[in-house]
Amino acid sequence: MPERAGRVVLDRFESHALRDNPHGDPHMRTIPVYLPPSYETSRERYPVIFWCHGFAQTALWGVNGSPGIPSLGMCMDRAIAAGAPESILVMIDAFTRFGGSLYLNSPANGQYEDYIINELIPYIDRTYRTRPDRGHRAVDGKSSGGFGALALAMRHPEQFSAVGSHSGDIYFEAAYRPLFWEFLNQVHRAGSVEKFLDDYLALPKRYDAAYIPALSMCFSPNPARPPYYFDLPMDLVTGELVPEVWARWIALDPVSLAESCTDALRAMKVIYLDCGNRDQYYLHFGARLLSRRLTSLGIAHDYFEYDDDHLYVNYRYPESLRRLAAAIA
Amino acid sequence: MPERAGRVVLDRFESHALRDNPHGDPHMRTIPVYLPPSYETSRERYPVIFWCHGFAQTALWGVNGSPGIPSLGMCMDRAIAAGAPESILVMIDAFTRFGGSLYLNSPANGQYEDYIINELIPYIDRTYRTRPDRGHRAVDGKSSGGFGALALAMRHPEQFSAVGSHSGDIYFEAAYRPLFWEFLNQVHRAGSVEKFLDDYLALPKRYDAAYIPALSMCFSPNPARPPYYFDLPMDLVTGELVPEVWARWIALDPVSLAESCTDALRAMKVIYLDCGNRDQYYLHFGARLLSRRLTSLGIAHDYFEYDDDHLYVNYRYPESLRRLAAAIA
Amino acid sequence: MPERAGRVVLDRFESHALRDNPHGDPHMRTIPVYLPPSYETSRERYPVIFWCHGFAQTALWGVNGSPGIPSLGMCMDRAIAAGAPESILVMIDAFTRFGGSLYLNSPANGQYEDYIINELIPYIDRTYRTRPDRGHRAVDGKSSGGFGALALAMRHPEQFSAVGSHSGDIYFEAAYRPLFWEFLNQVHRAGSVEKFLDDYLALPKRYDAAYIPALSMCFSPNPARPPYYFDLPMDLVTGELVPEVWARWIALDPVSLAESCTDALRAMKVIYLDCGNRDQYYLHFGARLLSRRLTSLGIAHDYFEYDDDHLYVNYRYPESLRRLAAAIA
Amino acid sequence: MPERAGRVVLDRFESHALRDNPHGDPHMRTIPVYLPPSYETSRERYPVIFWCHGFAQTALWGVNGSPGIPSLGMCMDRAIAAGAPESILVMIDAFTRFGGSLYLNSPANGQYEDYIINELIPYIDRTYRTRPDRGHRAVDGKSSGGFGALALAMRHPEQFSAVGSHSGDIYFEAAYRPLFWEFLNQVHRAGSVEKFLDDYLALPKRYDAAYIPALSMCFSPNPARPPYYFDLPMDLVTGELVPEVWARWIALDPVSLAESCTDALRAMKVIYLDCGNRDQYYLHFGARLLSRRLTSLGIAHDYFEYDDDHLYVNYRYPESLRRLAAAIA
Repeated sequence: MPERAGRVVLDRFESHALRDNPHGDPHMRTIPVYLPPSYETSRERYPVIFWCHGFAQTALWGVNGSPGIPSLGMCMDRAIAAGAPESILVMIDAFTRFGGSLYLNSPANGQYEDYIINELIPYIDRTYRTRPDRGHRAVDGKSSGGFGALALAMRHPEQFSAVGSHSGDIYFEAAYRPLFWEFLNQVHRAGSVEKFLDDYLALPKRYDAAYIPALSMCFSPNPARPPYYFDLPMDLVTGELVPEVWARWIALDPVSLAESCTDALRAMKVIYLDCGNRDQYYLHFGARLLSRRLTSLGIAHDYFEYDDDHLYVNYRYPESLRRLAAAIA
Repeated sequence: MPERAGRVVLDRFESHALRDNPHGDPHMRTIPVYLPPSYETSRERYPVIFWCHGFAQTALWGVNGSPGIPSLGMCMDRAIAAGAPESILVMIDAFTRFGGSLYLNSPANGQYEDYIINELIPYIDRTYRTRPDRGHRAVDGKSSGGFGALALAMRHPEQFSAVGSHSGDIYFEAAYRPLFWEFLNQVHRAGSVEKFLDDYLALPKRYDAAYIPALSMCFSPNPARPPYYFDLPMDLVTGELVPEVWARWIALDPVSLAESCTDALRAMKVIYLDCGNRDQYYLHFGARLLSRRLTSLGIAHDYFEYDDDHLYVNYRYPESLRRLAAAIA
Repeated sequence: MPERAGRVVLDRFESHALRDNPHGDPHMRTIPVYLPPSYETSRERYPVIFWCHGFAQTALWGVNGSPGIPSLGMCMDRAIAAGAPESILVMIDAFTRFGGSLYLNSPANGQYEDYIINELIPYIDRTYRTRPDRGHRAVDGKSSGGFGALALAMRHPEQFSAVGSHSGDIYFEAAYRPLFWEFLNQVHRAGSVEKFLDDYLALPKRYDAAYIPALSMCFSPNPARPPYYFDLPMDLVTGELVPEVWARWIALDPVSLAESCTDALRAMKVIYLDCGNRDQYYLHFGARLLSRRLTSLGIAHDYFEYDDDHLYVNYRYPESLRRLAAAIA
Repeated sequence: MPERAGRVVLDRFESHALRDNPHGDPHMRTIPVYLPPSYETSRERYPVIFWCHGFAQTALWGVNGSPGIPSLGMCMDRAIAAGAPESILVMIDAFTRFGGSLYLNSPANGQYEDYIINELIPYIDRTYRTRPDRGHRAVDGKSSGGFGALALAMRHPEQFSAVGSHSGDIYFEAAYRPLFWEFLNQVHRAGSVEKFLDDYLALPKRYDAAYIPALSMCFSPNPARPPYYFDLPMDLVTGELVPEVWARWIALDPVSLAESCTDALRAMKVIYLDCGNRDQYYLHFGARLLSRRLTSLGIAHDYFEYDDDHLYVNYRYPESLRRLAAAIA
């Protein structure tokens, strides 16, 4: 246990961009903020790392933890104990009732990218003693939050100068497509996609059962198709891809973004990628592919592959937080 | 979403009873405390519900949540919106490095029962505006925490006057014994119990893999057997029960406690039990058995059986919290 | 591949003992008989090994196979290639519509033990060139068939002088009891045991889904309880054992039979036991316990434990067949 | 149970085409032949249905069975009891040491298509009282054997005039590609594909663990690549498809064959397809796609979708056998 521990406050943030979002999800969000050990006794300003949670989670996920599976705050304490400069860690909340916005604007979900870039970052900078510029700001995350971190950094290099992704959603061919088949079985049982989603919303407990529709709301929203406003990328009967919809997904795959946002990637001081080599969602294939792509583009990055799966990989966060914090100090 | 929401503070509590515990687990614990909506604007005193988390969790588990799987704070908000008197909710932390103390004193784990009864309850009463007597105090919990709530209430009726257990560890024959076989396979692969536990402690992520030894540290500690100080209730080769050790477990089974602590149960204003009818740990058999036992003892109680399993049952907490809050108002 | 291969004939045998069995199961059975390589060209008489198939199978199971998972005939060919004396191998059929008779007489299933001992053995001896006495007769089997082999040998030492059991059903506490809980869940869903069995019989495909009732028909039949004529060993609501019924099961557990039939075991020239050390049905605990029990009784036997599970263990049969064939040559 | 039962003989057939196959698999095969009830007492000639077994099986699979899961012989008995004309049923054996040839010629596996078409069919016609022409010959099968039946019929309409496929391997995108990812994990652990296959061959029990390489030996053999002579259709590190190899697979997908062999399909008197709607290998998507393709080509066929999965679907065979037998009577 590190001797010097930071403190987590559960801030509440009210977003205008999320007001009146199509799902009626709250526009008031709890934002846990980790303040480093010296924060309360000093007058200094600190760099900030933003953290993107995974699918079906909220920002509060980062508060949960134990000595065996450390919370984000404990991870930051460990990073600092290992030599990282003291930094603030802000846990973004990008939850939707179907499981997640993937940190993107979407007419089906709401304007999550706007809320983060235009509202939350400025709020943090005016509320806490931060160093309020891209050079002192990083973004990190896990799973869908790894995707979120990469997408935010690649689409907003004016905001971030370092990025990390742990077991991030990369290479949708491997990450998402194998799940289409089982989803189609579920739709078949429900009778229709709409009925499937109505049933989902009526569940007493809602976790990740609406994964594929939720992703469709992020990657292929369609304002002309009520009540849920998205196109599915496959034929419901045969599972054949619908090329024009699938192309919309692929355009947002970090493997594609790396080509469309190469300059943004070159502007990062640190790009940290890791994955387990037996990830249940096959995300290691995408991590390898992106690493290979970055190498062929001549973009320096760190890539670590662990003998592990997708779950409870918090033990790996201190190292990425340490590297990001050092880069933005 | 309830319009009026309470606030959760992450308190820090330093225990003397846990100092120098055998595992070297922290004696400083984060204790999340839910303060009801009117708390900050009133000068009133409030009844208190204590919550016992499950195995392999800490008290922070209760802070995590989403609209689909509400945190304990959200559950309390919902209970109040449904008419419950405003109450404080205190999330006890009883984590150990092997996964949990089950809220009991043990020479193998530390004095968790003492810490709760003699230290944490008084601390809460002197720190928050509580109504500091048994008549205004309840205890609730889930899984091992359901066991904890029942054990604390039955062993300390001077502290609590209402108790709830969601999918609690009851009837160890069903809850624990079926897991012995697989545990023995793991010990066989590790080479010895000590090696198995050494390996566990070396894992980068530690969740519930040491379940049976952890239970043994709670139910059958043995100060004469270093380095981990417990007796296992079965023969390592054949799995046959060791009757004298198993008897120590059974003595602490809530089904047995109901007989040894009948007066305590009679002193409860509310006894709330629920379970899913396809609980992965077979805890519905124990819930039924305890309910049957209470009925035969003439002790009034609520028992609800849901068509559900063991996971993410938070949607059931508002109802028990509502009943407990009403009883101790 | 052994150069010299025996031949399997699919004999048909009509039983009087099984005629009018309560289930209406066929009294005509296909009995595959392996005749060793020299059988057709010689005039010799051969010792006979009887084989007991597993639960939910018929004798035809022993005919199926591939080079990767050899059939019983291929196993016998390999045993002979490894030096075993040429022997006949007879595959007993003890199937019932609920999955198996366990080779026992039962008013719920029919008189399977009588059919084997009084009818099938004499039929084999008068139909094939056998050496028709206990000294030249062995019995072997796998899983429930391992139980069958042990039970037949222990109860009929006048018929057999050598016995083998591969991953046999031994120590019912480990082998069967952990399965009671899930069975009770199924009964709960079906509404009653009778409805559960009616549903089972209406399935288009019937494999092992009626395992626990089928075992009850073998171990605790009750002619006074139509329509299926058995007592279950547990309370349907709480899962508590019903001691007087469970005692009937335990009396037939090979661990108990070893004590009640010790002389029979002493009369065996070979007792061969094996098991995988991660058997899904936890049968290794029983194999170890029986081996330990035999050792304490001073009864010589072979016990092999493999790093394997319960499935496709055919590769182990050549060795037991070789030892049994050598013993009865 | 049908009153009139046919008889199964275990014929042995020696192939010249399979002699000296690259794997050293046996060129002598056991071929079970079902002779209908009247065969022995009549002098008539009978139509013949050939049956193709599934992956990791041999022809002997068809002999195994029980009243609950009928053998192929029992299925034929049931078909005849339901009005089907009496027919001979021949169980083809197309096993290889890696699990199956898929009934195709391949320099990696051997000349299985030649063996069936040029050797086994003539042998059956000269050995049994058959009606030796395409009009009285059908081919049926399950899983890989469904693929086999479709491929044999489409590529050899001069031999067959009716075809059936139960849960056949159709639409490789759904049937095979989702399995590539896990296979790559296994190769990663083994170190190389060659090592993976060496390890497979050293296993004491070999079932379907070499599925993807075995398929590659069928669909994309490469005589220039010792020691196992095939190309994999994906990049070993990232899983990206290798387009030119994957194209070789796709060319043999029944969905593609339906376009390249349309005339053959038009020449069939019966095309029978079925599948379960929750097939573990997602084969229902291919069954639907092929049915849709046939419909758009104006080719009459039967398609049945069951509420079932991939396993133990024998109860569906009597209906396809009845239709095929009626068509070729």
